[in-house]
Amino acid sequence: MSSNRDIDALIEMMAKLPGLGPRSARRAVLHLIRKRALLLTPLADLMQTVAATARECLNCGNIGTADICDICASEVRQNGILCVVEDVADLWAMERSGVFKGRYHVLGGTLSALDSVGPDDLRIPRLLDRVKTESVNEVILALNATVDGQTTAHYIADQLDGMVSLSSLAQGVPIGGELDYLDDGTITAALNARKRL
Amino acid sequence: MSSNRDIDALIEMMAKLPGLGPRSARRAVLHLIRKRALLLTPLADLMQTVAATARECLNCGNIGTADICDICASEVRQNGILCVVEDVADLWAMERSGVFKGRYHVLGGTLSALDSVGPDDLRIPRLLDRVKTESVNEVILALNATVDGQTTAHYIADQLDGMVSLSSLAQGVPIGGELDYLDDGTITAALNARKRL
Repeated sequence: MSSNRDIDALIEMMAKLPGLGPRSARRAVLHLIRKRALLLTPLADLMQTVAATARECLNCGNIGTADICDICASEVRQNGILCVVEDVADLWAMERSGVFKGRYHVLGGTLSALDSVGPDDLRIPRLLDRVKTESVNEVILALNATVDGQTTAHYIADQLDGMVSLSSLAQGVPIGGELDYLDDGTITAALNARKRL
Repeated sequence: MSSNRDIDALIEMMAKLPGLGPRSARRAVLHLIRKRALLLTPLADLMQTVAATARECLNCGNIGTADICDICASEVRQNGILCVVEDVADLWAMERSGVFKGRYHVLGGTLSALDSVGPDDLRIPRLLDRVKTESVNEVILALNATVDGQTTAHYIADQLDGMVSLSSLAQGVPIGGELDYLDDGTITAALNARKRL
Protein backbone atom coordinates (compact mmCIF):
# COMPACT_ATOMS: atom_id res chain seq x y z
CA MET A 1 0.00 0.00 0.00
CA SER A 2 2.61 2.50 1.05
CA SER A 3 5.27 0.61 -0.91
CA ASN A 4 7.22 0.27 2.34
CA ARG A 5 7.43 -2.91 4.42
CA ASP A 6 7.64 -1.48 7.96
CA ILE A 7 4.95 1.14 7.42
CA ASP A 8 2.65 -1.47 5.84
CA ALA A 9 3.26 -3.83 8.78
CA LEU A 10 2.45 -1.02 11.22
CA ILE A 11 -0.79 -0.23 9.39
CA GLU A 12 -1.76 -3.90 9.34
CA MET A 13 -1.14 -4.25 13.06
CA MET A 14 -2.98 -1.04 13.95
CA ALA A 15 -5.95 -2.32 11.93
CA LYS A 16 -6.24 -5.22 14.39
CA LEU A 17 -7.16 -2.89 17.25
CA PRO A 18 -10.84 -2.82 18.16
CA GLY A 19 -12.49 0.26 16.65
CA LEU A 20 -9.91 0.65 13.85
CA GLY A 21 -10.23 -0.80 10.35
CA PRO A 22 -7.75 -0.68 7.45
CA ARG A 23 -8.78 2.85 6.43
CA SER A 24 -8.64 4.41 9.90
CA ALA A 25 -5.39 2.53 10.61
CA ARG A 26 -3.84 4.19 7.54
CA ARG A 27 -5.04 7.60 8.70
CA ALA A 28 -3.72 6.94 12.21
CA VAL A 29 -0.30 5.81 10.95
CA LEU A 30 0.07 8.86 8.67
CA HIS A 31 -0.90 11.07 11.60
CA LEU A 32 1.66 9.29 13.80
CA ILE A 33 4.45 9.69 11.24
CA ARG A 34 3.65 13.39 10.85
CA LYS A 35 3.68 13.92 14.62
CA ARG A 36 6.71 11.75 15.17
CA ALA A 37 8.32 13.62 18.08
CA LEU A 38 5.04 14.50 19.76
CA LEU A 39 3.17 11.24 19.33
CA LEU A 40 4.88 8.31 17.61
CA THR A 41 8.07 8.07 19.70
CA PRO A 42 6.39 8.72 23.08
CA LEU A 43 3.61 6.26 22.19
CA ALA A 44 6.15 3.56 21.29
CA ASP A 45 8.04 4.19 24.54
CA LEU A 46 4.85 4.04 26.61
CA MET A 47 3.82 0.81 24.92
CA GLN A 48 7.20 -0.72 25.75
CA THR A 49 6.80 0.34 29.38
CA VAL A 50 3.26 -0.97 29.66
CA ALA A 51 4.19 -4.23 27.90
CA ALA A 52 6.99 -4.71 30.41
CA THR A 53 5.06 -3.77 33.55
CA ALA A 54 1.31 -4.37 33.14
CA ARG A 55 -0.04 -7.45 34.90
CA GLU A 56 -3.22 -8.77 36.45
CA CYS A 57 -3.63 -8.24 40.19
CA LEU A 58 -3.29 -11.65 41.87
CA ASN A 59 -6.00 -10.69 44.31
CA CYS A 60 -8.80 -9.09 42.29
CA GLY A 61 -7.89 -9.44 38.58
CA ASN A 62 -7.60 -5.67 37.91
CA ILE A 63 -4.79 -4.58 35.58
CA GLY A 64 -1.94 -2.65 37.18
CA THR A 65 1.83 -2.61 37.34
CA ALA A 66 2.33 -4.62 40.54
CA ASP A 67 1.34 -8.09 41.73
CA ILE A 68 -1.26 -6.44 43.96
CA CYS A 69 -3.09 -3.53 42.30
CA ASP A 70 -3.40 -0.02 43.75
CA ILE A 71 -7.01 -0.55 44.79
CA CYS A 72 -6.28 -3.80 46.65
CA ALA A 73 -3.20 -2.28 48.25
CA SER A 74 -4.92 0.99 49.20
CA GLU A 75 -5.33 1.64 52.92
CA VAL A 76 -8.10 4.20 52.51
CA ARG A 77 -10.54 1.98 50.58
CA GLN A 78 -13.30 0.44 52.65
CA ASN A 79 -12.81 -3.19 53.67
CA GLY A 80 -15.61 -5.71 53.90
CA ILE A 81 -17.47 -4.56 50.76
CA LEU A 82 -16.73 -6.12 47.37
CA CYS A 83 -18.03 -5.01 43.99
CA VAL A 84 -18.05 -7.89 41.48
CA VAL A 85 -17.59 -6.88 37.82
CA GLU A 86 -17.23 -8.90 34.62
CA ASP A 87 -14.27 -7.11 33.17
CA VAL A 88 -11.48 -4.62 33.86
CA ALA A 89 -13.28 -2.12 31.59
CA ASP A 90 -16.31 -2.32 33.92
CA LEU A 91 -14.07 -1.70 36.94
CA TRP A 92 -12.67 1.39 35.20
CA ALA A 93 -16.21 2.58 34.43
CA MET A 94 -17.18 2.19 38.11
CA GLU A 95 -14.03 4.07 39.16
CA ARG A 96 -14.82 6.94 36.77
CA SER A 97 -18.13 7.47 38.55
CA GLY A 98 -16.03 7.79 41.74
CA VAL A 99 -18.93 6.78 43.98
CA PHE A 100 -17.78 3.32 45.14
CA LYS A 101 -15.19 3.33 47.90
CA GLY A 102 -14.87 -0.41 48.58
CA ARG A 103 -12.81 -3.03 46.76
CA TYR A 104 -13.38 -4.94 43.52
CA HIS A 105 -13.36 -8.44 42.17
CA VAL A 106 -13.01 -8.91 38.39
CA LEU A 107 -14.50 -12.20 37.14
CA GLY A 108 -12.83 -12.06 33.73
CA GLY A 109 -16.01 -12.91 31.80
CA THR A 110 -19.41 -14.48 32.33
CA LEU A 111 -20.63 -18.05 32.58
CA SER A 112 -21.67 -19.25 29.17
CA ALA A 113 -22.99 -22.69 28.31
CA LEU A 114 -22.59 -21.98 24.59
CA ASP A 115 -18.89 -21.08 24.89
CA SER A 116 -18.47 -23.73 27.64
CA VAL A 117 -17.23 -21.21 30.22
CA GLY A 118 -17.76 -22.70 33.69
CA PRO A 119 -17.21 -21.20 37.18
CA ASP A 120 -13.61 -22.49 37.30
CA ASP A 121 -12.76 -20.63 34.07
CA LEU A 122 -13.66 -17.36 35.83
CA ARG A 123 -12.38 -15.92 39.10
CA ILE A 124 -15.41 -17.33 41.00
CA PRO A 125 -13.52 -19.76 43.30
CA ARG A 126 -11.18 -16.87 44.20
CA LEU A 127 -14.25 -14.72 44.98
CA LEU A 128 -15.58 -17.35 47.42
CA ASP A 129 -12.13 -17.53 49.03
CA ARG A 130 -11.96 -13.76 49.43
CA VAL A 131 -15.45 -13.58 50.93
CA LYS A 132 -14.36 -16.12 53.58
CA THR A 133 -10.86 -14.81 54.31
CA GLU A 134 -11.30 -11.03 54.00
CA SER A 135 -14.33 -10.90 56.34
CA VAL A 136 -16.50 -9.44 53.58
CA ASN A 137 -20.00 -8.58 54.70
CA GLU A 138 -21.44 -7.06 51.54
CA VAL A 139 -21.13 -8.10 47.88
CA ILE A 140 -22.49 -5.88 45.10
CA LEU A 141 -23.02 -7.72 41.82
CA ALA A 142 -22.32 -5.06 39.17
CA LEU A 143 -22.67 -7.39 36.19
CA ASN A 144 -23.98 -6.34 32.82
CA ALA A 145 -27.75 -6.50 32.31
CA THR A 146 -27.34 -9.17 29.61
CA VAL A 147 -28.55 -12.78 29.72
CA ASP A 148 -25.03 -14.11 30.44
CA GLY A 149 -24.37 -11.38 33.00
CA GLN A 150 -27.59 -12.10 34.88
CA THR A 151 -27.03 -15.90 34.74
CA THR A 152 -23.61 -15.36 36.30
CA ALA A 153 -25.11 -13.04 38.94
CA HIS A 154 -27.67 -15.72 39.87
CA TYR A 155 -24.99 -18.40 40.10
CA ILE A 156 -22.81 -16.24 42.39
CA ALA A 157 -25.83 -15.26 44.49
CA ASP A 158 -26.57 -18.98 44.98
CA GLN A 159 -23.01 -19.68 46.06
CA LEU A 160 -22.88 -16.79 48.52
CA ASP A 161 -26.42 -17.26 49.86
CA GLY A 162 -26.50 -16.68 53.62
CA MET A 163 -22.83 -15.74 53.86
CA VAL A 164 -23.01 -12.02 53.02
CA SER A 165 -25.46 -9.26 52.27
CA LEU A 166 -25.98 -9.34 48.48
CA SER A 167 -27.18 -6.63 46.11
CA SER A 168 -27.12 -5.80 42.43
CA LEU A 169 -27.17 -2.48 40.57
CA ALA A 170 -30.61 -0.88 40.23
CA GLN A 171 -32.30 -1.12 36.85
CA GLY A 172 -34.35 1.75 35.47
CA VAL A 173 -34.38 4.86 33.33
CA PRO A 174 -30.80 6.13 32.65
CA ILE A 175 -30.09 9.75 33.65
CA GLY A 176 -31.01 11.95 30.71
CA GLY A 177 -32.97 9.09 29.14
CA GLU A 178 -36.23 9.65 27.30
CA LEU A 179 -39.05 7.15 27.82
CA ASP A 180 -39.92 7.16 24.13
CA TYR A 181 -36.48 5.75 23.27
CA LEU A 182 -36.32 3.08 26.01
CA ASP A 183 -37.11 -0.58 25.40
CA ASP A 184 -40.05 -2.31 27.09
CA GLY A 185 -37.84 -4.29 29.49
CA THR A 186 -36.27 -1.13 30.92
CA ILE A 187 -39.63 0.58 31.34
CA THR A 188 -41.05 -2.54 33.06
CA ALA A 189 -38.03 -2.69 35.40
CA ALA A 190 -38.26 1.03 36.17
CA LEU A 191 -42.00 0.80 36.90
CA ASN A 192 -41.62 -2.27 39.12
CA ALA A 193 -38.85 -0.57 41.11
CA ARG A 194 -40.66 2.78 41.33
CA LYS A 195 -39.68 5.06 44.20
CA ARG A 196 -42.14 6.68 46.59
CA LEU A 197 -41.68 10.48 46.61
CA MET B 1 -9.22 5.91 35.33
CA SER B 2 -7.27 2.69 35.58
CA SER B 3 -5.61 3.88 38.82
CA ASN B 4 -2.29 3.45 37.04
CA ARG B 5 -0.16 6.26 35.66
CA ASP B 6 1.46 4.56 32.64
CA ILE B 7 -1.72 2.85 31.48
CA ASP B 8 -3.66 6.12 31.85
CA ALA B 9 -0.99 7.97 29.86
CA LEU B 10 -1.16 5.31 27.13
CA ILE B 11 -4.96 5.60 26.94
CA GLU B 12 -4.73 9.39 26.77
CA MET B 13 -2.18 9.25 23.95
CA MET B 14 -4.11 6.63 21.96
CA ALA B 15 -7.21 8.84 22.27
CA LYS B 16 -5.35 11.50 20.26
CA LEU B 17 -5.25 9.30 17.15
CA PRO B 18 -7.77 10.19 14.45
CA GLY B 19 -10.75 7.84 14.65
CA LEU B 20 -10.23 6.96 18.31
CA GLY B 21 -11.90 8.70 21.25
CA PRO B 22 -11.45 8.13 24.99
CA ARG B 23 -13.80 5.13 25.06
CA SER B 24 -12.32 3.32 22.07
CA ALA B 25 -8.79 4.15 23.30
CA ARG B 26 -9.60 2.39 26.58
CA ARG B 27 -10.91 -0.64 24.70
CA ALA B 28 -7.84 -0.68 22.44
CA VAL B 29 -5.43 -0.45 25.38
CA LEU B 30 -7.15 -3.28 27.27
CA HIS B 31 -7.04 -5.35 24.09
CA LEU B 32 -3.32 -4.55 23.68
CA ILE B 33 -2.52 -5.51 27.29
CA ARG B 34 -4.40 -8.79 26.93
CA LYS B 35 -2.56 -9.60 23.69
CA ARG B 36 0.78 -8.42 24.95
CA ALA B 37 3.09 -10.88 23.18
CA LEU B 38 1.06 -10.95 19.97
CA LEU B 39 0.23 -7.29 19.62
CA LEU B 40 1.53 -4.81 22.21
CA THR B 41 5.25 -5.63 22.10
CA PRO B 42 5.49 -6.06 18.29
CA LEU B 43 3.46 -2.85 17.81
CA ALA B 44 5.79 -0.90 20.12
CA ASP B 45 8.83 -2.29 18.28
CA LEU B 46 7.40 -1.42 14.87
CA MET B 47 6.57 2.09 16.04
CA GLN B 48 10.16 2.54 17.21
CA THR B 49 11.43 1.34 13.82
CA VAL B 50 9.09 3.57 11.85
CA ALA B 51 9.83 6.56 14.09
CA ALA B 52 13.53 6.05 13.42
CA THR B 53 13.34 5.42 9.69
CA ALA B 54 10.25 7.08 8.15
CA ARG B 55 10.95 10.23 6.18
CA GLU B 56 9.59 12.28 3.31
CA CYS B 57 11.01 11.54 -0.12
CA LEU B 58 13.13 14.57 -1.13
CA ASN B 59 11.93 14.20 -4.70
CA CYS B 60 8.16 13.62 -4.53
CA GLY B 61 7.09 14.00 -0.87
CA ASN B 62 5.92 10.38 -0.45
CA ILE B 63 6.68 8.77 2.91
CA GLY B 64 9.26 5.98 2.90
CA THR B 65 12.39 4.91 4.70
CA ALA B 66 15.00 6.41 2.39
CA ASP B 67 15.80 9.90 1.12
CA ILE B 68 14.39 8.84 -2.26
CA CYS B 69 11.24 6.72 -2.02
CA ASP B 70 10.77 3.31 -3.67
CA ILE B 71 8.53 4.75 -6.39
CA CYS B 72 11.00 7.50 -7.35
CA ALA B 73 13.89 5.03 -7.23
CA SER B 74 12.08 2.31 -9.17
CA GLU B 75 13.47 1.48 -12.60
CA VAL B 76 10.30 -0.17 -13.88
CA ARG B 77 7.97 2.80 -13.34
CA GLN B 78 7.25 4.87 -16.40
CA ASN B 79 9.19 8.11 -16.79
CA GLY B 80 7.74 11.29 -18.21
CA ILE B 81 4.30 10.96 -16.60
CA LEU B 82 3.57 12.55 -13.22
CA CYS B 83 0.45 12.13 -11.09
CA VAL B 84 -0.05 15.10 -8.74
CA VAL B 85 -1.87 14.34 -5.47
CA GLU B 86 -2.65 16.44 -2.40
CA ASP B 87 -1.54 14.03 0.24
CA VAL B 88 0.38 10.80 0.91
CA ALA B 89 -2.95 9.11 1.73
CA ASP B 90 -4.12 9.95 -1.80
CA LEU B 91 -0.92 8.47 -3.27
CA TRP B 92 -1.54 5.26 -1.30
CA ALA B 93 -5.15 5.18 -2.57
CA MET B 94 -3.91 5.52 -6.17
CA GLU B 95 -1.35 2.75 -5.58
CA ARG B 96 -4.04 0.42 -4.16
CA SER B 97 -5.94 0.69 -7.44
CA GLY B 98 -2.70 -0.46 -9.10
CA VAL B 99 -3.59 1.13 -12.42
CA PHE B 100 -1.09 4.00 -12.55
CA LYS B 101 2.44 3.04 -13.56
CA GLY B 102 4.10 6.46 -13.69
CA ARG B 103 5.56 8.54 -10.88
CA TYR B 104 3.96 10.80 -8.28
CA HIS B 105 4.25 14.27 -6.86
CA VAL B 106 2.70 14.96 -3.42
CA LEU B 107 1.78 18.62 -2.88
CA GLY B 108 1.33 18.32 0.87
CA GLY B 109 -2.00 20.18 0.93
CA THR B 110 -4.04 22.58 -1.16
CA LEU B 111 -3.90 26.29 -1.77
CA SER B 112 -6.16 28.04 0.69
CA ALA B 113 -6.69 31.78 1.00
CA LEU B 114 -8.49 31.31 4.33
CA ASP B 115 -5.61 29.39 5.93
CA SER B 116 -3.10 31.57 4.00
CA VAL B 117 -1.47 28.60 2.25
CA GLY B 118 0.29 29.86 -0.88
CA PRO B 119 2.16 28.01 -3.68
CA ASP B 120 5.47 28.23 -1.79
CA ASP B 121 3.97 26.46 1.26
CA LEU B 122 3.22 23.46 -0.96
CA ARG B 123 5.56 21.43 -3.19
CA ILE B 124 4.48 23.45 -6.27
CA PRO B 125 7.88 25.06 -7.08
CA ARG B 126 9.44 21.58 -6.83
CA LEU B 127 6.76 20.30 -9.26
CA LEU B 128 7.68 22.97 -11.81
CA ASP B 129 11.37 22.06 -11.39
CA ARG B 130 10.62 18.37 -11.93
CA VAL B 131 8.54 19.04 -15.03
CA LYS B 132 11.49 20.93 -16.53
CA THR B 133 14.34 18.66 -15.45
CA GLU B 134 12.77 15.19 -15.70
CA SER B 135 11.48 15.71 -19.28
CA VAL B 136 7.90 15.14 -18.16
CA ASN B 137 5.41 15.18 -21.01
CA GLU B 138 2.17 14.40 -19.15
CA VAL B 139 0.83 15.62 -15.79
CA ILE B 140 -2.34 14.10 -14.30
CA LEU B 141 -3.94 16.30 -11.64
CA ALA B 142 -5.50 13.79 -9.21
CA LEU B 143 -6.66 16.38 -6.68
CA ASN B 144 -9.77 16.01 -4.55
CA ALA B 145 -13.03 17.25 -6.06
CA THR B 146 -13.35 19.92 -3.35
CA VAL B 147 -13.27 23.70 -3.80
CA ASP B 148 -9.67 23.94 -2.51
CA GLY B 149 -8.58 20.94 -4.56
CA GLN B 150 -10.01 22.36 -7.77
CA THR B 151 -8.57 25.84 -7.08
CA THR B 152 -5.15 24.24 -6.68
CA ALA B 153 -5.64 22.24 -9.88
CA HIS B 154 -6.47 25.42 -11.80
CA TYR B 155 -3.44 27.21 -10.40
CA ILE B 156 -1.11 24.36 -11.38
CA ALA B 157 -2.73 24.08 -14.80
CA ASP B 158 -2.04 27.80 -15.34
CA GLN B 159 1.61 27.38 -14.35
CA LEU B 160 2.16 24.37 -16.60
CA ASP B 161 0.14 25.68 -19.54
CA GLY B 162 1.85 24.83 -22.83
CA MET B 163 4.69 22.92 -21.20
CA VAL B 164 3.06 19.47 -20.86
CA SER B 165 -0.09 17.56 -21.68
CA LEU B 166 -2.44 18.11 -18.72
CA SER B 167 -5.39 16.05 -17.53
CA SER B 168 -7.50 15.55 -14.41
CA LEU B 169 -9.43 12.54 -13.11
CA ALA B 170 -12.84 12.00 -14.71
CA GLN B 171 -15.87 12.98 -12.66
CA GLY B 172 -19.06 10.92 -12.75
CA VAL B 173 -21.06 8.14 -11.16
CA PRO B 174 -18.85 5.99 -8.85
CA ILE B 175 -18.78 2.24 -9.60
CA GLY B 176 -21.67 0.62 -7.71
CA GLY B 177 -23.25 4.05 -7.16
CA GLU B 178 -27.01 4.56 -7.28
CA LEU B 179 -28.30 7.70 -8.98
CA ASP B 180 -30.89 8.24 -6.26
CA TYR B 181 -28.13 8.71 -3.66
CA LEU B 182 -25.87 11.00 -5.74
CA ASP B 183 -25.77 14.75 -5.34
CA ASP B 184 -26.84 17.10 -8.15
CA GLY B 185 -23.28 18.18 -8.94
CA THR B 186 -22.14 14.60 -9.60
CA ILE B 187 -25.13 13.86 -11.82
CA THR B 188 -24.54 17.10 -13.76
CA ALA B 189 -20.85 16.22 -14.23
CA ALA B 190 -21.69 12.65 -15.29
CA LEU B 191 -24.30 13.86 -17.81
CA ASN B 192 -22.00 16.51 -19.30
CA ALA B 193 -19.21 13.95 -19.73
CA ARG B 194 -21.52 11.23 -21.08
CA LYS B 195 -19.92 8.54 -23.20
CA ARG B 196 -21.15 7.46 -26.64
CA LEU B 197 -21.86 3.70 -26.66
